[in-house]
Amino acid sequence: MKYCGECGSQVELVIPKDDNRHRHVCLSCKTIHYYNPKIVAGCIPDLDGKILLCKRAIEPQYGKWTLPAGFMENGESTTQAAVRETLEEANAMVEIQDLYTVINLPHVNQVYLIYRAKLSDEGYSSGVESLEVDLYAEADVPWEHLAFPVIRETLSLYFEDKRAGNFKIRTGEILKKEEGYEMRLHT
Amino acid sequence: MKYCGECGSQVELVIPKDDNRHRHVCLSCKTIHYYNPKIVAGCIPDLDGKILLCKRAIEPQYGKWTLPAGFMENGESTTQAAVRETLEEANAMVEIQDLYTVINLPHVNQVYLIYRAKLSDEGYSSGVESLEVDLYAEADVPWEHLAFPVIRETLSLYFEDKRAGNFKIRTGEILKKEEGYEMRLHT
Repeated sequence: MKYCGECGSQVELVIPKDDNRHRHVCLSCKTIHYYNPKIVAGCIPDLDGKILLCKRAIEPQYGKWTLPAGFMENGESTTQAAVRETLEEANAMVEIQDLYTVINLPHVNQVYLIYRAKLSDEGYSSGVESLEVDLYAEADVPWEHLAFPVIRETLSLYFEDKRAGNFKIRTGEILKKEEGYEMRLHT
Repeated sequence: MKYCGECGSQVELVIPKDDNRHRHVCLSCKTIHYYNPKIVAGCIPDLDGKILLCKRAIEPQYGKWTLPAGFMENGESTTQAAVRETLEEANAMVEIQDLYTVINLPHVNQVYLIYRAKLSDEGYSSGVESLEVDLYAEADVPWEHLAFPVIRETLSLYFEDKRAGNFKIRTGEILKKEEGYEMRLHT
């Protein structure tokens, strides 16, 4: 950020009074501009044990597979966001079940909230952000072609908990390392 | 937002190509500016069944009581944010336990993530954003002087689950109504 969204003047990076972090503050109208992490909301659409995955038609990770998920919008709830993303990316209806993961990605300022979901049997097809959408059993998941570590970890945990017959909420963070990443699970 | 943070030119509210919502788009450099919900992270610091509450020294709800919680910052995780807010508001150390609530407030574009936590017995005192901080047993909580409905609901659920000896994650949303609000629990 270089200019104030309120008055168009230049901003400077300073620590405001009673704060302890650098913020973009307008030199003219003194507005303080804050940046905060974003929520990525989505779900794991399950139909008879197979999971609906979407092949990305957008960057980043064009051509890689992911779960239906995306940035939560103002004015909606996390479950509404998960339903909307599934409709937009896969033209599919889901019945949202329990919250399954809360995974922090501090290096990109994102928190993933992924719900378990029952996929409607009324079909699915590629939305504008997907090249393909299809159902995958665990053994057939394109594990080497998944878009993000958080998706790989989420799917692994899901199939593990499904085999054990015991879903519990999974929380933690994924930390970027010099080579690869580290997954830290709290629960 | 009236001006582009990148180039200082005027923005207009339009629906960008391949989008379905109005966004602030720069007339000059074409940057699209997105607004998304913020996470409020905090905890319920428990010491021998009593909960640490903070009397707000800032608006909104100056003088009302709340749990230590605040806007999550870039670069941190939700648990780090909960620990930091407790330190800032109550000069208190906590050991974060399980995630307890995920409550949407769509009318203010916030999602509350509140953890259960064990308060250290090394003491507490008012931080810069608090007038007072103190420990409250359920019967002594200033129920009529709590800052926000989400705090009242969170504390009610907490004491209810504590009595039942069974904490489970609580998810849902609080919807603003013409008079008061409606709490919708999913779990």
